[in-house]
Formats: sequence, C-alpha cells, structure tokens
Amino acid sequence: MAGNTFGSHLQLTTFGASHGAALGGILDGFPAGISIDTAAVQRAVDRRRPGQSKITTQRKEGDQVQILSGIFEGKTLGTPIAFQIGNTDAKSKDYDHLRGVYRPSHADRTYQLKYGHRDHRGGGRASARETVCRVVAGALAAQLMPFLEVNAYVSAVGEAEIPPDAALNIASREDNPVRCPHAATAQRFEELIRAARKEGDTLGGIVSCQVTGLQAGWGEPVFAKLDAELARAMLSINATKGFELGSGFAASRMRGSQHNDGIRPGQKNATNHAGGIEGGITNGEDLFFRVAFKPVATLLRDQQSVNQADEPVTVQGKGRHDPCVVPRAVPIVEAMTYLTLADHFLRSHTDRIAQINRSQNSTP
Amino acid sequence: MAGNTFGSHLQLTTFGASHGAALGGILDGFPAGISIDTAAVQRAVDRRRPGQSKITTQRKEGDQVQILSGIFEGKTLGTPIAFQIGNTDAKSKDYDHLRGVYRPSHADRTYQLKYGHRDHRGGGRASARETVCRVVAGALAAQLMPFLEVNAYVSAVGEAEIPPDAALNIASREDNPVRCPHAATAQRFEELIRAARKEGDTLGGIVSCQVTGLQAGWGEPVFAKLDAELARAMLSINATKGFELGSGFAASRMRGSQHNDGIRPGQKNATNHAGGIEGGITNGEDLFFRVAFKPVATLLRDQQSVNQADEPVTVQGKGRHDPCVVPRAVPIVEAMTYLTLADHFLRSHTDRIAQINRSQNSTP
Amino acid sequence: MAGNTFGSHLQLTTFGASHGAALGGILDGFPAGISIDTAAVQRAVDRRRPGQSKITTQRKEGDQVQILSGIFEGKTLGTPIAFQIGNTDAKSKDYDHLRGVYRPSHADRTYQLKYGHRDHRGGGRASARETVCRVVAGALAAQLMPFLEVNAYVSAVGEAEIPPDAALNIASREDNPVRCPHAATAQRFEELIRAARKEGDTLGGIVSCQVTGLQAGWGEPVFAKLDAELARAMLSINATKGFELGSGFAASRMRGSQHNDGIRPGQKNATNHAGGIEGGITNGEDLFFRVAFKPVATLLRDQQSVNQADEPVTVQGKGRHDPCVVPRAVPIVEAMTYLTLADHFLRSHTDRIAQINRSQNSTP
Amino acid sequence: MAGNTFGSHLQLTTFGASHGAALGGILDGFPAGISIDTAAVQRAVDRRRPGQSKITTQRKEGDQVQILSGIFEGKTLGTPIAFQIGNTDAKSKDYDHLRGVYRPSHADRTYQLKYGHRDHRGGGRASARETVCRVVAGALAAQLMPFLEVNAYVSAVGEAEIPPDAALNIASREDNPVRCPHAATAQRFEELIRAARKEGDTLGGIVSCQVTGLQAGWGEPVFAKLDAELARAMLSINATKGFELGSGFAASRMRGSQHNDGIRPGQKNATNHAGGIEGGITNGEDLFFRVAFKPVATLLRDQQSVNQADEPVTVQGKGRHDPCVVPRAVPIVEAMTYLTLADHFLRSHTDRIAQINRSQNSTP
Repeated sequence: MAGNTFGSHLQLTTFGASHGAALGGILDGFPAGISIDTAAVQRAVDRRRPGQSKITTQRKEGDQVQILSGIFEGKTLGTPIAFQIGNTDAKSKDYDHLRGVYRPSHADRTYQLKYGHRDHRGGGRASARETVCRVVAGALAAQLMPFLEVNAYVSAVGEAEIPPDAALNIASREDNPVRCPHAATAQRFEELIRAARKEGDTLGGIVSCQVTGLQAGWGEPVFAKLDAELARAMLSINATKGFELGSGFAASRMRGSQHNDGIRPGQKNATNHAGGIEGGITNGEDLFFRVAFKPVATLLRDQQSVNQADEPVTVQGKGRHDPCVVPRAVPIVEAMTYLTLADHFLRSHTDRIAQINRSQNSTP
Repeated sequence: MAGNTFGSHLQLTTFGASHGAALGGILDGFPAGISIDTAAVQRAVDRRRPGQSKITTQRKEGDQVQILSGIFEGKTLGTPIAFQIGNTDAKSKDYDHLRGVYRPSHADRTYQLKYGHRDHRGGGRASARETVCRVVAGALAAQLMPFLEVNAYVSAVGEAEIPPDAALNIASREDNPVRCPHAATAQRFEELIRAARKEGDTLGGIVSCQVTGLQAGWGEPVFAKLDAELARAMLSINATKGFELGSGFAASRMRGSQHNDGIRPGQKNATNHAGGIEGGITNGEDLFFRVAFKPVATLLRDQQSVNQADEPVTVQGKGRHDPCVVPRAVPIVEAMTYLTLADHFLRSHTDRIAQINRSQNSTP
Repeated sequence: MAGNTFGSHLQLTTFGASHGAALGGILDGFPAGISIDTAAVQRAVDRRRPGQSKITTQRKEGDQVQILSGIFEGKTLGTPIAFQIGNTDAKSKDYDHLRGVYRPSHADRTYQLKYGHRDHRGGGRASARETVCRVVAGALAAQLMPFLEVNAYVSAVGEAEIPPDAALNIASREDNPVRCPHAATAQRFEELIRAARKEGDTLGGIVSCQVTGLQAGWGEPVFAKLDAELARAMLSINATKGFELGSGFAASRMRGSQHNDGIRPGQKNATNHAGGIEGGITNGEDLFFRVAFKPVATLLRDQQSVNQADEPVTVQGKGRHDPCVVPRAVPIVEAMTYLTLADHFLRSHTDRIAQINRSQNSTP
Repeated sequence: MAGNTFGSHLQLTTFGASHGAALGGILDGFPAGISIDTAAVQRAVDRRRPGQSKITTQRKEGDQVQILSGIFEGKTLGTPIAFQIGNTDAKSKDYDHLRGVYRPSHADRTYQLKYGHRDHRGGGRASARETVCRVVAGALAAQLMPFLEVNAYVSAVGEAEIPPDAALNIASREDNPVRCPHAATAQRFEELIRAARKEGDTLGGIVSCQVTGLQAGWGEPVFAKLDAELARAMLSINATKGFELGSGFAASRMRGSQHNDGIRPGQKNATNHAGGIEGGITNGEDLFFRVAFKPVATLLRDQQSVNQADEPVTVQGKGRHDPCVVPRAVPIVEAMTYLTLADHFLRSHTDRIAQINRSQNSTP
C-alpha cells in the first residue's frame, strides 16, 4: 500500500534509487511455463539507456539486468521473478552541492516534507532512473502476450509535432534518435533538441502509443476501467502531465453525431474515436492514447530556489542530463502499457468461467 | 479485485445499475468519532440529480439517500458506512427495443463480449447513474477533511471555453445551470446546449477542478503518485477521455526555463505549473487539473449499428437524456477528488511516525 | 484495508450491526452467467438463524435475504451482487443498562479503546449477528462450485466429543439440533447444553469440517497458502480460539515415519495426515480441519466488571442468548470455507495459461 | 495477489528458492527516519541458520544479509527496503536423483500439478529456506516497535512438553540448542531429538509465543481480526498444522463461568484466557499463542512414492536435514509475529484521527 507495487494479478514491486547498491524488482503472478528470452529483456533496457546518442545524457549506466529467481531451465516457474540492475556509474560526489538544497520543479522539497529524511543524490527514489525496473518488467510482461504489439513513438517535441495527416511507418521510429516515425518531423525534433541544449534549456513533448492485436473484454468496471488504469500507469511515470485516450481533449469540442463510432456488421467500428475502449472494456479495436511530458526540470542554467533552512540559494546548472526526455520515455510508456495490459489479461481469465458456463447452457 | 472498489485506506465499494431495486455502497476505513451532516450528503446528491433545469434530462430520480450503518448518535463508529438509493423512476419498458441491440459508443457491446449476459435496461451497470454512489461517498469523505475545499466547474462546452484571462468567482458557478463561474461564458454554454438539443445532437466539454487548503506530503511514490491516482479516479468516470494536471498538455510545448516553478523563501512557489504535485506528492500549493468529457453518446437521431446477431439495425433516437453532461459531472469530479484525497490523507498518517521520530531525535 | 473485506478475487465486503436498519454486503468478482438459486441462499440463512430449537436463543431474527443487484433474469451479470437483511426484532431498549459498561470477554472494551465511540446495543458490529452476511455470501459462492461439497458438523461440546473410531453419516447431522453426525453423541451434547442453560452457564465446542470434490492446485505459496487462508477465515469468526488442519496439534506428537503420507500410483495418498493441502496447495484429497470455539461469553449470571469510567459494576445476567454456539456455527464455518475456496478457485484460473502453454509446447 | 506478499500497510514481498542465485525481499511501507541496527538483523538471521548445533542440519548457509536500498546514513528513507541473501552452499547435484520424483509429504507433487514446471532442487520455492527472508523483514519490523517484545520458545517436542506449572525464564531459552526456557525439559527435548536422528526418523513439536508491551486497539474487525491475521501468518510457515490463541482448543472444554476474563478496575483482566485479543482487537494484555509443527518430512529412511509418470519409486533417505525443526522455527515464529504486529501498528494510526477528534469534541 506504500505505492511501490503496481498491478493486481500481475504485481510488480520495485526498489532502488539513483544512487546506492542497486535497483530491482519482483514480478509476482507471472504464469508458469512461459519461455523467457532474457536477451529481449536486455534489449528493452538498452533502448531506455542514457548515452545512446548525442542528444541524450552522456552518463553511461551499463544497466546489465540480472534475473535472480523465477525462471528455471528457460521457463517461468510461476514463482516470483526477481531482477536487479547494479548502479555502476553513480558519481555521488557530483551531488554534494545539492545536500539540503531544493531544485526547482523536482521532488526534493516534497520528499523532505513527507519523509523528513532524504537521499539528495540524483533525486534518490524520485529519479527517473527508477523506470529501468519498469522496462525490465514490461519486457517480461510482453512475452506473456505474444499476440499483441505495443508501439509508442514521439509525436511532439516542444511546439513541433507530426502533421495530422502524415503517413506513419511506426517501425521506422527506431531509425532516428528521437523515435519519431515520420522522417521529416524527426529531423525537426532533433534540431529543436540540439538548439535547446545549446541554450542550456530543455523541452517537453508528447509520446503517442498504439496497441494492436488486443482481445475484446479486458478491463474491469467501474473503478478499474482499462482507460483509468492506463491513465494511472502513465501519470506514474516521471515528468508526465497529461493523458488522453482516442479523441481525448479534442472530444470535448466535438458533437455526438461526429464523435460516435458507428458499429458495422463484422463487429468493426466505422471510426475509432473511442481509442479501443468502451465502458472501460476493450472492444477489440486498436488502442490509442497520448501522454504529455513536461520539459526536463534540470537546466544547464542557474536557478533561484531555497534550501531546507528556507534560505535563498542559487541552484547551479551542471550535471549530465537529457535536454528532452521523450525519446527515452518511449520504451517506458511501452513497458507500463505491457504491464497494465498483462494485468488485465490475467484478470479477464475469470471471465472464461462465464464463457464455459454460457457454452454449456446453450447446449440443447 | 473485480473493479468495484476504490481506494486503499478509505475504500468505497459500490453496486447497482440504472434499473433494479437500488444502488448503493459501503465506505470502509472511515475514522471513528467524526460528526456527520447527513443533510449535506443529500444536498451533494441533489446537485448531481437529473431534472434540475431545462438543459438536463427530465427524468426525476428522486435519489433519497438512506444510510444503513456506521453512524451512531450522529457520529461515525469506525465501522463500515453503508448507504442506499432506491431506483424509483425506472421505466424499464422504455428499453425493450434495446434488448440485443448495441448502441454506438455505449458499453453495450463490450459488456456483452466480456460477460455474455447483460442487463440491457439503461446501460445496466455501465449507466452514469452509478455515479450517484460516488457522490454520496465523496460527500462523506469531504466531512473528514473540513480544512480543504474542492471546487470543480465547467470551463468548456463544445468549442466554447472560458477566456484564458477571465476573472473567476468560483462560488458563482452555482448561479447558472451550466456551473460556469464566468457569467458571460455561462450564457454562451447554455445557448450552445439548447441549440444542440434542438438538433437532437449532443456536446462534450471540460470540467476544471481546484483544491485549496491542502497539506504538503500526500501521495505515495512511485506507482501511487497522487496525480496518477487522480488520473485514474477521473478516467473512471463515464464519458471522460482525458486528464491533465497543472500545465498539462501545454507543458509539452514549453521550455524548462519557462515551466520550472521557482521556489521562494516561505516555501512558496513563484508559479504553479506543477498543479500542486511534485514527484507525486502534494507541495502545499493549490491543486489544479482538467478533465475532458466526450459528447453524450445517446442522440435524438437514428443511428446505424448492429445487434448481438451481428445484423444491421437502426438505433432509434428516443429517451430522456442530457444533451451535455458536464454541468452534472461537476459534483462527480468533486466527489472523486474528495475520495482520492481522503484516501491519501489517511495513507499519509503513517508519515507521522517519521515526524514523531524526527522530533525525538532532534532533542538535544 | 479496514478489515471488512474478505478475499482477493472474489471479494465480500459487509456492513451492519446487531441493531440498526440492516446488515448486508457486496460480493464482487462473481463470474457472469451463473444461474442462482435464491431459495438455496435463504435456506442457508435459515440454518444459521436463532430460534430453530429449544437449545438456541429465542430471538426471532426473521432474516429475509433481499438481493439488490448483480442478478438479472436468474443469472449473474458479473457485476457486484448486493444483498441485505433487515433488523426486525432488535429490542434496543434491552441494552440500555449496558451503555458504558464493559461485559467480560466481549469486545465492548476493545472497541471503546480503539474507536472512542461505540454502539453498545448487542455488541454493535462485534455481534455474531454479523455472520449472517457471511452465510449469504457463502451460499452464493457454493453455487459457483457445484462440483464440491463442504460439510461441517459439531464434533465436541464441552468435555464430550465424538468417539475417535465412530462411523459418521455426515448428512444425518441435520436430524438433530446440535448438528452432530453421530446419534448417541448428539444426544449427549444436547443433555450437556440443557444442563448448562439450567445453571445459567455456557459451553464451548469444536466444529469439524470436511470438503470433498476438490481439484488439485488451489492455494498460492508462500503467504497465501490455502491452509493459511482457511486459518484466517476461521479465526475471523466470533468466539473461535484455534484452528488445525489434518493431523493438527496431534502432528506435533508424531514421528515423521508415522506422519508422512505415502504416495501410491494413481496419485492417491495412503493416508491423509496432510488434511488435503501440501505446500499450501490442494493435492486433490479431501480437506479436513477443526475449529475450536470458546464458551459463549454472555451468562445468565451476574459478573463483576468495570464501566468506561473504570468503576466496578455488576453486569446482570439477562438477555436472550445461546448457551452453546457451535450448532449455529456449523453453517458459518461452511460459509467461510466456501468463500475461501471460491476465491482460490478463481485465483487458480491463472494457472490455466501455464496449462495451455504446456500443451502447446509439448506438441511435437 | 499471487501470494508472495504479506501485509497491508507494511508489505513484505519475497523471492527465491532453495537453489538459484539468491533469496531476498522488498519491505515497503516502512516509515522514514527510523535508525536501523543492521547487525541486529544479521543476528536474527544467524539464530535461524542451520548448523548452529549438533542437533540441526550440518548445511552451512552462510546467510549474509545485504541491504540494497531504503536506508541512507543509518536511517530509513520511507522508500522500499530491499535485501538479499546469496545461495552459497547449494549443492544442486545432490538433488539430481529427485528430478521427477515426488517426495512424500513434501510439496513436489502439488507444485507440479499447479505449475506444470518445477524446480526440483531442494524443494524449490517450497523449501523452508524461503523463511530466511521473513526473519530479515521481521528483524526490521522489530526496530519499528522498540516498546514491545516478542518471545517465542519451544514448549513441546514429540510427546514431551514443558510441565503446565513450570516456572519459565524465557530469556534462558537461548542457553540450550532446543530453545526451551525450562532446563530440565530442554534436556529431555535434546535426548528425544538425538534418539530420533539415530533412527533416521524425525519429530514434530510446538512453538509457544508471548508478546509483552502491546498497546490496546490493534486489529481490524471483522475479517482482519488480529488473531485471524496471526493465524494466517503462522499457518503460512512451512510444516505448521495448527494455531491456538490464549486458552485455544482447551477453551472448547470449558464453561463460560470459568473462561470469562473478569475485568478489574485499572482495566486489568483477572485472567487472560483471551490471550490478549478480544473481538479481534488487542486489549493491552500480553499476547499468547501456540503453533503446532508436524515432524520433518525428509527422513533418513527409504520411502515408497511415485514419480511424475505415476510409476512407483523408492525415495532414498539421504541429504542434510534437521531431525526436528522447532528450535530453528522459533525465530521464524517471532519474525512473522513482528511483521503482523507492525502491519497493525501502522494500520491503527488511522484511529488517531478519532482520538484527535474526540479530544477536540470533549473540550467544553
């Protein structure tokens, strides 16, 4: 209940901070007998890793995933899968000047107010480094549902965005460092990020996410609607400020006669304003949602703030940080999507009893 | 785990559907010894009730709240508070033509696919009538936190919205049927809704919500961040399509140097782009968020769809429904906010152990 | 989290007290499409009802079960099943002399210490009347698992018990008011209870429970072992003081060479000291466990105690109470067993994914 | 929900098996600012360790506890505390003869039936080696409640037990290898264990546990009564078959007039048949309960069983195992008691709101 566990039937509990011995987690509720490709897990982590290109931070986090339990002779045992990532490049002394200082728009002050005792190094538990554990678990969850595909990509950086009618080749997003599936826009994003970095400034952006291959019937009304669960999952990622499903905020400006998705024979909707979920339950269409990220709070500029004694201080602009986090957020959004979906895949298995009962009752 | 329970420390479990004997709920975890004003609970329910004005549905739902347990001699006992609202105006026969029919952009089809057995009357459990239970529980939760105030209001209807620089008198929102705290805009909203109704069409809109009087330190990193919990709470409300906190989606278009909230001595932020939450934890500033609602799916127009046998059908445009749901959504957004905050108020009590320990350790 | 919810996948939340408008509950997670025999639910409640014979209390609690939601046209909807039992024979004035008084070995004092505000009438929420909700829910859960049978019976009353080698016809337990499946012992139990009542005294006893028809594979290691979950379920019943599975406390006096259950071809154990559970998981054998009940705390004798002001008081021996609760505890033990098993039946459905995967992998 | 998490407010999630890289856990919900004595944690683990004396197994498990997160500069951060114990002395090849074999009265068969894929080495996840994680977490939980003391001890081994009226010096239990606080009985226990070992046989026993220094008001009616939670905690320990609180099974043979604990001014009970809990809530008296352990299932004798192919096999009596597990179970019982109590200590903090409210209301 203290907030470090995600999920109901597939439960991920994580630990660890920016600095310290290690980060890791326990994934409980994973069904037995599933073959696990551990190289695929490492690849997912590598996609999130800093230092992948010139536009990301130059910290090298290594991030070797070690699986400690739950897999035997290549297959899951049904017992908890524990994993761990060592903190190898943690330059703790870089943070000595931040002891007792509250960085603007970071969690330094709220952690201090809540807990009264705080690890000031690199944001401690509030560091986005924590998300590496989500990526590991998401990559495991993906292997439970080989029938579906989750593809996130960067659709906006600062004021630039993919044009509304652009044709997207989603797989191509890995060809550029900003993970944008539209080459011309990708180049624009890259330029913007370089320019912001040069000015010691940072940018926000939007990650869009599409899921194909989904079954109908996932999601639990009324408080665990699948869209509600996805919203929570996304807003739990560092630096996110908004979530919208399908037509999203634009829906508020539409009329019912435009917005309603007509149902055609073959059970296929004519449009997908719903974004794949109706009444909190998947309808078998593709899922589509967008997540807003604020600009990175760590600037390479001096900023005014206060310290724990409430004295004014100047927070110096140094350190190794991304000028724009959204390209590296792509695998994190995907991971949280896989975890949310896998949880509801398992939750929906109870529905099978109804299906069995139904087929028996319909027997003459 | 089946989705009809909300909250961790203060847990609301609800039941009931559009038709049937009653709706109701159990609120568990409410501390003992709190004086309860049951008239205030009824008033909250009355604010949500249909038939309040000419722009809402003419169904009269009565909605008398009966409290069955948990309160003794005017004060809470610490035992579960159960409540119930009878279904008195349920014209079930009005729905005979919908048996086996899937209304576009409703949950008819997804419920059928998930459960295989469905109450077709008025949307069954998927009906927004379910939210009356949330309003009851929210009104109880509010009485646990007399020190704070939650004020939601309508900020957009269709393409109209409150001008960005308008001065708002939030209390005045109750003076008009659209619950907009800006008189000129309220009139515009009303006109738009009347026009849509005349055309048998419907409108979406946006509900904004502000919380004042909050304490710092509420929210549980990393998966139960307060913003994540609010996002889930809001997306669990019928017809919502998006959530944004503070700067929201606009943050994605800002630079870090603009967006960062500088901290001033006295622990007061210079701006509040954060919307009151940093690192998932309240910082003591006001909370501010917005929720997008799609246009009502029930039209007074004929629509094409299919039935359970996958045959094309025309869904007739009849029945008593709101052309725009956002004015009545205001008390529902407030209720879910109260419930989310009360849960985290209780969760944050564990932090007091740290505070006690801290003050003892700091004694010389 | 406040303790009024039982179960993980099938969740029962209850409310209500000895006095007040009603008791009831919400059963969430019940699969859809199951035909429900509501008369069987009422019969289960009638078995628990006071006033069934001369050896039980003469209070007449009527106890008409009303189902408010979750069942439509005779079958479950997959939505929460809410039910309610009115309090019709609650003579609240009978309890005026107990306001502010702590009855020995009741929960009066602990409730006062915990909550500071207390419903003194009939023990309030601590009254065994609360268990009527468990019986309703258990009778619903039973209908989810028609393949198994739960049979509890009284095996000891005071110092008398069924002889170890007695042949039992479990169905016959309903032929006598003490619910003992051994006619001679039943008569002895009845005599003991009559004698205790005459002296204004009370007796304890033991309820044994046997489950047949169980599938192997239910129960979740390591903290939700099925025996651990049953122990919790039984110790949550009023007046219980102990639980033992299979060989139970006698196992502590045995040697491994005696106690081990040899496994024979056909996967059948030679003996069943385990009581049907190994490593927390059912092995397909019958389940067998015993629950100890203390003597009823309400005596028809005066007792010394104190009141809330810590002054000595004499608690008068009056009121309508059972001299021995175990015959009426039989349906309660059965209900909690059904609820525990149904929860794990649903939990074990995740295992099917492993089974499906296994059969696919084993295909050449 | 998969069973590897214990607790509601203080949540322990564990992983790991008899063999494999490591065992460990995450303890979430631990309040911030508590000074942690890590040496005390290691001492607790050492008390459980095999190879402590000639009457326990000669495996040397080293069992060095490594804390990975959650503690900074000697004090808890309020973030998850992760810990790990390497598997250093795991002779996996010793178990090759058990691949595909079901050992009698072990969990081999039920794991195979449930999961279809099993780690046969040393019982895998079902091994009692798993309990080392409980001991680590229990030792941390103990440091949250310095005001109370949990003392378990061995009260019976096989047919021998501490005489009912023996004077016990509980601290002295650590002076002998059987952890019995009565010197003469301790010697008898030791002789019995030596004799059983010589015969290749094993013994069961009883662990008693006493808690002093408890506050009144812990425990949550009605399903999370403290006795119910303790029962679950104890039955979740490997090899346990029964639990009884206070008068326990003996209560079933007593009369109400004997059993009732009279309340005296000063709020002190005259007797403590209740065992410290009334209505599921602590009353401020000492807690007292007993836990029955079956004899160790691994014998140094050949036994008949079957393998996965349902063919008869002889399970050879070899390996390094305890002839009687109860002396090493003492720290495990203590750990589960600490964890259960710490969870309810934190849960009871919500009651403080009632207390604050009460004191405010009583102001004239």
